[in-house]
Amino acid sequence: MRISELSRSSGVPVATIKYYLREGLLHDGVRTSATQAQYDDSHLARLGLIRALLGAGGLTVAATKRVLGELDHPPDSMHDLLGSVTLHLAPDPGPEVDLAEAEQLVAALGWTREHFDQDHLRPLAEALQALRSAGFPLSEEQLLGYGRAMRAIAEEEVDGVPTDSPEAAVRYVVLGIVLVEPLLLALRRLAHADASARRFGPKR
Amino acid sequence: MRISELSRSSGVPVATIKYYLREGLLHDGVRTSATQAQYDDSHLARLGLIRALLGAGGLTVAATKRVLGELDHPPDSMHDLLGSVTLHLAPDPGPEVDLAEAEQLVAALGWTREHFDQDHLRPLAEALQALRSAGFPLSEEQLLGYGRAMRAIAEEEVDGVPTDSPEAAVRYVVLGIVLVEPLLLALRRLAHADASARRFGPKR
Repeated sequence: MRISELSRSSGVPVATIKYYLREGLLHDGVRTSATQAQYDDSHLARLGLIRALLGAGGLTVAATKRVLGELDHPPDSMHDLLGSVTLHLAPDPGPEVDLAEAEQLVAALGWTREHFDQDHLRPLAEALQALRSAGFPLSEEQLLGYGRAMRAIAEEEVDGVPTDSPEAAVRYVVLGIVLVEPLLLALRRLAHADASARRFGPKR
Repeated sequence: MRISELSRSSGVPVATIKYYLREGLLHDGVRTSATQAQYDDSHLARLGLIRALLGAGGLTVAATKRVLGELDHPPDSMHDLLGSVTLHLAPDPGPEVDLAEAEQLVAALGWTREHFDQDHLRPLAEALQALRSAGFPLSEEQLLGYGRAMRAIAEEEVDGVPTDSPEAAVRYVVLGIVLVEPLLLALRRLAHADASARRFGPKR
């Protein structure tokens, strides 16, 4: 199909498709003349993925590029792959942050410190730091409760990782992590509104 | 204290403090001359809150302003307050999105549709839509599992809402929702890395 049809089928404007091509997010079509190229279903599928990562996934263009690169060139061993893939999703490194509290929580949860490097721990350290500087510290019991709940979710998800091909595994892990995050947050907010209304709302 | 000392104590640059003052995020100090004002601990506490909301909370300046307004002027009834507060945190409305799938999921979870308006449901609808357009649809069983896990977390949190003053309740709900989100996501990613390493890593 031509770029105009690719645009119609995907709902993505032509100018945006051209931007993705220039940025290397979308692979080139097969050139049929100096000004035209043919695109196929692989372009349509990739456009859906790009939109999901940039939109609901909330990734930057640079992070989207890293994730797509991981999908296109998966590492050889399942261990390297699953160990590194979350790092590609991490935001760019910010200022130094004290990891002591995060390390303590991870140890209290019984997770293995050697499974993480500093970049893995940074978002947890930053979240704990933000709670404290907002004057909203959580008790150790609350922190452990959150950790256990997330662990239960992650165990289920890791159970489902397809092991038949590295590409399928990367796709599963990357999309599972990135695209399920907004789902979890949306569900938590709705659960809050429902639970609050039941607790504090007018009696029906 | 003078603005230079407020900057030292809070770690926030003077230029940034002036920006917060101009934007109305931070209340004015007591003017002592044409060019100087005195600040106190209330400014220090508010700066911590602003940094947490803009930083880890990931809110825009406009959303931070709405949240701080809610803290400063809480509504009268606990019900109005808890029912409306999540809406102030919602991102600005985007393009129309089909709510049917989100409504179905909420019903399957046994939550009451009347407790939500469209703006509440939009993030869930968008998350489901993104999963589908990335070619990564979840089974109904998986969706229900996520919903129940988030409901359990929300119930615990609503149990802890202080009911002695509206201001305390708003502060608890807003900070609890906004600042716990990055904590949950950070814990889930670490739990993933730990669970994957145990499952697929080299035997120790």
